[in-house]
Amino acid sequence: MRLSRYFLPVLKETPAEAQIASHRLMLRSGMIKQSSAGIYSWLPLGFRVLRRVEAIVHEEQIRAGHIPMLMPTLQSADLWRESGRYDAYGPEMLRVRDRHDRDMLYGPTNEEMITDIFRSHVNSYKDLPLTLYHIQWKFRDEIRPRFGVMRGREFYMKDGYNFDIDRDGALHAYNRHMVSYLRTYERMGLQAIPMRADSGPIGGEDTHEFLVLADTGESEVFYDAAITELRLGDRQVNFDDRSECAAIVEEWTAPYARTDETHDAEAFARIPEARRRKSRGIEVGQIFYFGTKYSEPMGATVTNDKGEKVPVHMGSHGIGVSRLVGALIEANHDENGIIWPEGVTPFHCGIVNLRQGDGETDAACEKLYKTLVQKGLEPLYDDRTERAGAKFATMDLIGLPWRLTVGPRGLAAGKVELTCRRTGQSEDLTPADAVAKVAEIYAPHHAAAHWEPMANRSFHTWL
Amino acid sequence: MRLSRYFLPVLKETPAEAQIASHRLMLRSGMIKQSSAGIYSWLPLGFRVLRRVEAIVHEEQIRAGHIPMLMPTLQSADLWRESGRYDAYGPEMLRVRDRHDRDMLYGPTNEEMITDIFRSHVNSYKDLPLTLYHIQWKFRDEIRPRFGVMRGREFYMKDGYNFDIDRDGALHAYNRHMVSYLRTYERMGLQAIPMRADSGPIGGEDTHEFLVLADTGESEVFYDAAITELRLGDRQVNFDDRSECAAIVEEWTAPYARTDETHDAEAFARIPEARRRKSRGIEVGQIFYFGTKYSEPMGATVTNDKGEKVPVHMGSHGIGVSRLVGALIEANHDENGIIWPEGVTPFHCGIVNLRQGDGETDAACEKLYKTLVQKGLEPLYDDRTERAGAKFATMDLIGLPWRLTVGPRGLAAGKVELTCRRTGQSEDLTPADAVAKVAEIYAPHHAAAHWEPMANRSFHTWL
Repeated sequence: MRLSRYFLPVLKETPAEAQIASHRLMLRSGMIKQSSAGIYSWLPLGFRVLRRVEAIVHEEQIRAGHIPMLMPTLQSADLWRESGRYDAYGPEMLRVRDRHDRDMLYGPTNEEMITDIFRSHVNSYKDLPLTLYHIQWKFRDEIRPRFGVMRGREFYMKDGYNFDIDRDGALHAYNRHMVSYLRTYERMGLQAIPMRADSGPIGGEDTHEFLVLADTGESEVFYDAAITELRLGDRQVNFDDRSECAAIVEEWTAPYARTDETHDAEAFARIPEARRRKSRGIEVGQIFYFGTKYSEPMGATVTNDKGEKVPVHMGSHGIGVSRLVGALIEANHDENGIIWPEGVTPFHCGIVNLRQGDGETDAACEKLYKTLVQKGLEPLYDDRTERAGAKFATMDLIGLPWRLTVGPRGLAAGKVELTCRRTGQSEDLTPADAVAKVAEIYAPHHAAAHWEPMANRSFHTWL
Repeated sequence: MRLSRYFLPVLKETPAEAQIASHRLMLRSGMIKQSSAGIYSWLPLGFRVLRRVEAIVHEEQIRAGHIPMLMPTLQSADLWRESGRYDAYGPEMLRVRDRHDRDMLYGPTNEEMITDIFRSHVNSYKDLPLTLYHIQWKFRDEIRPRFGVMRGREFYMKDGYNFDIDRDGALHAYNRHMVSYLRTYERMGLQAIPMRADSGPIGGEDTHEFLVLADTGESEVFYDAAITELRLGDRQVNFDDRSECAAIVEEWTAPYARTDETHDAEAFARIPEARRRKSRGIEVGQIFYFGTKYSEPMGATVTNDKGEKVPVHMGSHGIGVSRLVGALIEANHDENGIIWPEGVTPFHCGIVNLRQGDGETDAACEKLYKTLVQKGLEPLYDDRTERAGAKFATMDLIGLPWRLTVGPRGLAAGKVELTCRRTGQSEDLTPADAVAKVAEIYAPHHAAAHWEPMANRSFHTWL
């Protein structure tokens, strides 16, 4: 993309309403624009990151054997009356009346609707196990929306639902989701720690939240530092293997890690003092096992292998897709702007032309741009007639992980400069070497957790 | 995908409420499930087609130089009061009150919101031309929703908006969109004829609708048969070239083609009788040039090259993404089910195992499946223990364009059968030749308009 043809409305001033870094930086870098309280438009740069996060969530869900579909945003109140949640849900539920005076609502979650789909179509244990999920806009009418997309009213969420014949099957689904979520966050370059949590309005006996450590987090968290050393890395996981998934869950839940809601001071005190940590965390996902809480009242039963009708065991699993964009920035920024991990960056690299209008420099930039595109990469080329300082400031603000700087002096020596946004380190390389290095950084075999497309590259089209 | 692990709830009976083929077939093939009147869940198979249609729309928009972003579903009523449309819009607008008693609405379209974004950030003619678009869920509270996703209440639409310094620039945007839309439909294997139309509540002086010929269409259409012979084929279009785009528009608008709203009986009578056609059509898109209708009342002005403040010239352009799925079926089905064009099929081909449980047949199917996946294709493998007739009926119903049939008799001769859904013709091939043939059908260089991924295959992730 050439910046002269793009729509990137960066702001010089820090907007007064933004209290936290991600909100401030998303507004300043032209990623979002508030439309009403807690409701945002995703401007082109923000939309690219949102889609990238969405794509990783889809890929990892599909890898774990979960099936994508899509439920609507508006739901009939009748379904929620069946589960008893229509009246139980407070004023955060946005209630709507249509022209025929029917009670509707803007879905904050989809347990009722998916249970209704299941009971309409599935009758036999032979069709289990089954996990369906979707990524759709949700609404929670927060009384005081704040922190930008971190606590917005209209938000984009992945929510998935497993249906299993018994408790053991559903607990495997729980474990499989935990492993799949760990993998999802790792690919985004994010450390999200699973912590035992309260189940809240979803209900159920087993639940973990995933928290990203950040000073601006809404929860107080207590953990054993040992947990922050764990990585899935390039382990190949067989998601059908119950003991393999259970072993990974055991590895991640053995070290103490809890939010203030479930904190156990005595257990915490038993951690060696050097590893005891107290911090703040941002919730970016949650998984639940709630058994027959919805299947029983809603009649979602199947015939088991003895010919008996039994209610299915269910769980649900959510990842806040739009919220993750904010959490990623909270965990990855400095005083100059955002620092995108490679897995979620909106463009693979930037190209800064230090002397726009100079024939040789322009030609070198053009060639660099075209070579990168031919390699399947998407550079953002700052081809505006601006001074170098302004171009660098924009690149630092929007946070592309790699920047190629092209100027007459370097070109005279046959070199361009490649700079890492995170470390600030630069090296002078021939254009060919610079392209090769950037391509290598994003190659499938490199940095597996950050950047691992499915074997099937056409997958995204076919989702 | 293995069917034994998929969620494909096909129905044996034809649902009583479905009056037209697409509604009936989408319900029967397990693509959708109604959630409330005019509101549908997209079950896994339907979701794949919806995403495929969405991907083609995105690719062709980006090819034409338009910039993707995303606006929210809920809008503030205040913006619509500025344009005067809040009161003008009838009961089809779903009005919502939030917990603070603020008037909101579920957006049926986004002229006001995009104009607000534009005026907040763009001040100079130097930042023009600019075309922004998004694909988002919309709501129109139809009094009598019917025909499934063809006339639903919650629907998925691409809507784009161009901003130009003058009328000439905006007319080029209009032409560019027409060419881009023609290309979009052609890639889906759909013939959509541009017809001069009425502007309706969007307003404006210039507008064309795109209509797919089908008996179940809501509009009566009159056209010169010559227009149905036109194809873009593999023409390389430079979307920045005003005269090139204008020439294509001239080519497609010279033959008479109008809906009943703008029909001119005298002009129609001048067409040679053999080419005069009267039919019905389904509207799948519309483009508008409306000048300063929104920019003037809403103050969307830029400074021109003389330093004067002038209102920008705008147009808007819509494609009904969810509606297209229905229109595609109306135009592509027979008495046994859907016949997907290759460009939008949910799976590239089906594999039918005629003797599930037979070691040799199972192994041959497995190998075929894995080889296709390695080639980047997505087969749907019917590995259920069902009789052959039921498997064929399912494949015919869901309409995958190509079917591979594997049975002991064929294997004894070293052959599998490849069947074309549209023609019904079969040929016996070695498994290797069958895979090669299917791969060739979906190769980028083949059938350009149906199946032409961008040069950059990672594009979808990075959108």
